[in-house]
Amino acid sequence: MKIETIQWNKNAVRLIDQTKLPSRLTYVDIKSLSKLIYAIRTMKIRGAPALGVAAALGMYLGIKDVKTKSSKLFFSKLKKVAELIAGSRPTARNLFWAIERILEVANQNDNRSIAEIKKFILKTALMILEEDRIICRNIGCHGQELIKNNYSVLTICNAGILATVDYGTSLAAIYSAKEKGKKFKVYACETRPVLQGARLTAWELNKNKIDVILICDNMAASLMQKGEIDMVIVGADRIAENADTANKIGTYNLAVLANYHKVPFFVAAPSSTFDFGIKTGKDIIIEQRSHEEVTKSFFKKPIAPENVKVYNPAFDVTPNRLISAIITEKGIIKKPFKNLRKKIHEIG
Amino acid sequence: MKIETIQWNKNAVRLIDQTKLPSRLTYVDIKSLSKLIYAIRTMKIRGAPALGVAAALGMYLGIKDVKTKSSKLFFSKLKKVAELIAGSRPTARNLFWAIERILEVANQNDNRSIAEIKKFILKTALMILEEDRIICRNIGCHGQELIKNNYSVLTICNAGILATVDYGTSLAAIYSAKEKGKKFKVYACETRPVLQGARLTAWELNKNKIDVILICDNMAASLMQKGEIDMVIVGADRIAENADTANKIGTYNLAVLANYHKVPFFVAAPSSTFDFGIKTGKDIIIEQRSHEEVTKSFFKKPIAPENVKVYNPAFDVTPNRLISAIITEKGIIKKPFKNLRKKIHEIG
Repeated sequence: MKIETIQWNKNAVRLIDQTKLPSRLTYVDIKSLSKLIYAIRTMKIRGAPALGVAAALGMYLGIKDVKTKSSKLFFSKLKKVAELIAGSRPTARNLFWAIERILEVANQNDNRSIAEIKKFILKTALMILEEDRIICRNIGCHGQELIKNNYSVLTICNAGILATVDYGTSLAAIYSAKEKGKKFKVYACETRPVLQGARLTAWELNKNKIDVILICDNMAASLMQKGEIDMVIVGADRIAENADTANKIGTYNLAVLANYHKVPFFVAAPSSTFDFGIKTGKDIIIEQRSHEEVTKSFFKKPIAPENVKVYNPAFDVTPNRLISAIITEKGIIKKPFKNLRKKIHEIG
Repeated sequence: MKIETIQWNKNAVRLIDQTKLPSRLTYVDIKSLSKLIYAIRTMKIRGAPALGVAAALGMYLGIKDVKTKSSKLFFSKLKKVAELIAGSRPTARNLFWAIERILEVANQNDNRSIAEIKKFILKTALMILEEDRIICRNIGCHGQELIKNNYSVLTICNAGILATVDYGTSLAAIYSAKEKGKKFKVYACETRPVLQGARLTAWELNKNKIDVILICDNMAASLMQKGEIDMVIVGADRIAENADTANKIGTYNLAVLANYHKVPFFVAAPSSTFDFGIKTGKDIIIEQRSHEEVTKSFFKKPIAPENVKVYNPAFDVTPNRLISAIITEKGIIKKPFKNLRKKIHEIG
């Protein structure tokens, strides 16, 4: 079964409503910017690379029906659209990277007609979408080298098919290793509070015949203590210039555990996840999400006292010293992580 | 509001059905051994000290209506009852300790009439219940010394009112510190899969005006990274002779995190939790519980693919080297943890 996380279909963004998984695989066609922003906020679509694609297509959705002939008015509207999308979720770098790329193309063509600029914007958005397929395959190709026969691989959240246009970042390594005929198993952390590991990763790995075992987040330590985990591989939402990496809450926990148990810890991400404008992880904005994600079950029933205080950061930051290597579409970046920008350029 | 976790009331074990919390505070009267065992298995009653009391009262429930006049038949029935209770849940030492204590009293009085032996059994069970009140108070008294003004205390699962006859073991330290007028806050890990932290600890601390903040288990690392946690305090289900400690799954995770972030890590437990028949934590039997606890929400709706494999240990073992000190009703046991049995005797 082909799973199409995000597509461009007849002037609409067609995406899987991920809040309905694993119970139902439902595609929705989104035709307006406001509905797309709502889908991003409510995590119908999520995952840093998929958010990049959604943002790019959203830029087109936001301006395609603008009727003005004034270039000034058009660019002012485009800027407004960019701000609206940028305000949807703050942490994933790819979302901002895609907006910036679209704006750049528009600005480079500001001497053309508005109709032409619109075409360039759509073309660029579709290019971002198509590029992501190749990026996933290349990350998979490099990442699979790290997975040996009979390994147990631990992952968190979902950085797979459902987070990208193709077969993922951290899960790309897993799918690619499977294609190479390697035998291994995957432990998937359920990833509270939104359960992307249980609902999405366990679902897509299961569908693709990968041997997956679901655990609660607090069980990973016990598995490592038993020597059951050979490597940890995670995705990333934003990587600072010094390689400090923001990813789904719980990632830093796994990094500390891996360090204590001498288990290698890998980050897999496209180069669009790097933010060279940010020196260290301290400067990464961490989204705080609603109390209800924690106090109500996934089906909105109370699982905690109604009036209890809650701390609910969506991400955490893993410092570079806890990361063994970063797998990108251009190759594997090894320690030391100094001059990351130059390194990515060199291996590319 | 007085919360009475377990009582003996008109020939019945009256207990709070903890599976109904936090939505409803419901008391149930249990009049048969089979119903009590079911209540233990399904965690209507849980928490090592409360399980000790339940086991002791269960011994009486199981034999009170035995009609035989043959001492041999009576003792054979008593042994059978002990085996049934012992088979309910394997990890909490206190449950076995209570059974052994009841059996010892019966054996010591085997020359008496069966009616008299029954009376001794009930008396001992009620003594175990009453003793637990004093034990909680004493653990609280010793434990509160470790909590300083403006501290942030992290805990997991529920080792409070709902786990004991009085106000808990790890939470006893917290309640006692509050009584002393100290100002502090408590972070409660929600404790997947059964959510004792969210449903029980957050509920009872909230009811008792303790400043509590609920987090998902995978957020503790992020708080420690920010320097937000001053100490960790947890309960225990079984402590081996070398101080290796079995407690709710996720405890070992917190111990590793505390070690990495140089945060002190305390275990609070009555001396009945120590198992001197077990040399190290490796020999502690860890209960594996049903897949559905992980794959279905607390309300039995699917949150993971139906056919996914699951690993669901109810407990993990924290090695002694990660434990700063053990708080008992007799005092605080500090490192090194050699000759624990002698140490407990000496401080007592």
